[in-house]
Amino acid sequence: MARVKLLSEEHVTGTVKEIYEDIKRTFGLPFVPNLFKAMAVHPAYLRTTWDRFKVIMGPGKLDPKTKEFLALAVSTVNNCEYCINAHTAQLRRMGVSEEELVEGLAVVDLFCGINKFLDGLRVESDLK
Amino acid sequence: MARVKLLSEEHVTGTVKEIYEDIKRTFGLPFVPNLFKAMAVHPAYLRTTWDRFKVIMGPGKLDPKTKEFLALAVSTVNNCEYCINAHTAQLRRMGVSEEELVEGLAVVDLFCGINKFLDGLRVESDLK
Amino acid sequence: MARVKLLSEEHVTGTVKEIYEDIKRTFGLPFVPNLFKAMAVHPAYLRTTWDRFKVIMGPGKLDPKTKEFLALAVSTVNNCEYCINAHTAQLRRMGVSEEELVEGLAVVDLFCGINKFLDGLRVESDLK
Amino acid sequence: MARVKLLSEEHVTGTVKEIYEDIKRTFGLPFVPNLFKAMAVHPAYLRTTWDRFKVIMGPGKLDPKTKEFLALAVSTVNNCEYCINAHTAQLRRMGVSEEELVEGLAVVDLFCGINKFLDGLRVESDLK
Amino acid sequence: MARVKLLSEEHVTGTVKEIYEDIKRTFGLPFVPNLFKAMAVHPAYLRTTWDRFKVIMGPGKLDPKTKEFLALAVSTVNNCEYCINAHTAQLRRMGVSEEELVEGLAVVDLFCGINKFLDGLRVESDLK
Amino acid sequence: MARVKLLSEEHVTGTVKEIYEDIKRTFGLPFVPNLFKAMAVHPAYLRTTWDRFKVIMGPGKLDPKTKEFLALAVSTVNNCEYCINAHTAQLRRMGVSEEELVEGLAVVDLFCGINKFLDGLRVESDLK
Repeated sequence: MARVKLLSEEHVTGTVKEIYEDIKRTFGLPFVPNLFKAMAVHPAYLRTTWDRFKVIMGPGKLDPKTKEFLALAVSTVNNCEYCINAHTAQLRRMGVSEEELVEGLAVVDLFCGINKFLDGLRVESDLK
Repeated sequence: MARVKLLSEEHVTGTVKEIYEDIKRTFGLPFVPNLFKAMAVHPAYLRTTWDRFKVIMGPGKLDPKTKEFLALAVSTVNNCEYCINAHTAQLRRMGVSEEELVEGLAVVDLFCGINKFLDGLRVESDLK
Repeated sequence: MARVKLLSEEHVTGTVKEIYEDIKRTFGLPFVPNLFKAMAVHPAYLRTTWDRFKVIMGPGKLDPKTKEFLALAVSTVNNCEYCINAHTAQLRRMGVSEEELVEGLAVVDLFCGINKFLDGLRVESDLK
Repeated sequence: MARVKLLSEEHVTGTVKEIYEDIKRTFGLPFVPNLFKAMAVHPAYLRTTWDRFKVIMGPGKLDPKTKEFLALAVSTVNNCEYCINAHTAQLRRMGVSEEELVEGLAVVDLFCGINKFLDGLRVESDLK
Repeated sequence: MARVKLLSEEHVTGTVKEIYEDIKRTFGLPFVPNLFKAMAVHPAYLRTTWDRFKVIMGPGKLDPKTKEFLALAVSTVNNCEYCINAHTAQLRRMGVSEEELVEGLAVVDLFCGINKFLDGLRVESDLK
Repeated sequence: MARVKLLSEEHVTGTVKEIYEDIKRTFGLPFVPNLFKAMAVHPAYLRTTWDRFKVIMGPGKLDPKTKEFLALAVSTVNNCEYCINAHTAQLRRMGVSEEELVEGLAVVDLFCGINKFLDGLRVESDLK
């Protein structure tokens, strides 16, 4: 159970309510994810984080699927269950197959291992 | 300085020499990266890791640029300098711009932060 | 379920029993936390860890609330559920509000993200 | 060396220039930290991150020294050299002594260890 | 619940079936661990990972118990529940006692703590 | 450079001096490692940490080489350069060969990778 009160949709008003509506519209979801309901305890923090979320995950030079896979890789290395679930669900909605998911995780597997072999033996970079 | 002897190209023979040639050919590099020169202390380990490297990073359903960005994200969360340098250089060779690099790292920034906010407040996943 | 037997209060004697009493008295708790019941499998380790716990968390130049917040931040970055629960509960007993908890976690969010942006681009410190 | 071009103060104009001025004013520093010079490659990301930085680190219920110590603890667990240097320097400017620094790091030491003892033995939380 | 379909023993044929048989024989287990059932979605990845598993965990200069303890330490620092369970069970089958488990975890505790104290104060190595 | 003053041997007296002598004797080293010189800023912390160090690394059921390898594995996953250097040097003094070092790091490589594959797909433990 969350360690702070999650502010449900019927209990918010004003700016927080507007942000909630924008979140549902942006993700095409019928509910506001718990992440944002926890941030709503501190409205200025919710406001600025959501603005930033849209800048970073919105249109840019990298395509949305690549960004979503990056988010899954990051959440996997950090072992954040909430985010792993959310990004896997989002990738599924984008049409990613089981084979692609396993292929992406195999890259995570490979380099988490190699990262540590290199660190443990203090192998120097080939690049100056 | 590496904590084990890196086996240079002129000092290896047989299977290790063949793997070294395959590595240079596969990456299109004029030298063997130090990673593999450290693994060569244990030839069976080098053999099986290189075979696996090619399976995971070779042709599949995900495109090579996405895989390389995943490798950079993983190495960044683990803060492995050797791998960060290697994958950034590889992405550059693939034509990735400064703007794309920063855009990718912004995704890493965003979700490393959110991962920890969620973990620290034990916010439960919206998904059952 | 714990992977070793947790030694309950009625099953210990001598030094371990005395440490258990001191733990309850120090924390003002009616029970001995499982952490210490697991360490009791190795009494010398329990003894020295508890002594050290009191030195580090006891009176010093930093106030107890700051130390408890540091413990929560550390446990959050490591994603240790047991410790997150324990330190949040302790902060609550110290009178910390929901707003303060979210404000503290926002700092964790901010710098976990920035840490990785900096690592991933190998941005050098401004300080010599 | 940073993997992207750091945009120096004399080479920026418009919004980025204004943000640079605000950064120097806010921190009371005669230069713009490299962190922001790297983010400037993606101006919208710099804009939103800086706005959020001020919300999170600005006036609130937690005092500035506690927030700075939290930032140091986070950066220490993540082992981010840039941030460790920056937050230590900031704490020094706030008048924090060597004894306080070591006392804070002792808390980091204590709970990084305990976190892992608990994880490794799967000891369950005392709280339901 | 796993985010991909785990391929059960009755649903696989050919090479995957052969690998499954080899896995059960090698571990002396009456079932195939879920790890391998998830990898089976990508048969070439399963093949090469299993070959490598046997090279790394098979006979060498380090004894099997030391390797298993290393695997437990790694999984503990990464807080991977699946692997912590699996390696603890394997150590138990090798005759390792509760006391030895706690003694091993005490080493993990000690150095996870010391690692971070050193990182946070940027203490330089005594070795050149 | 360390962020606190390292207290050199000629500048300490009393208990700290006695601990320094005990440290050199215990490790068979002609100097006091910087780790302890940094802790000496807070003498009670140095005292209790050194007592605990000896309990955990001293005679027990696990042999000293296994403990030292565990310490190296932990420091590798955490990427703590100071500790990686120190434990590698200690293992060398114990007669560990290059082949054994690489064999140990191969186990670290293998399970750091597998840990994350399992986490990222939320594969459930085979054990109840």
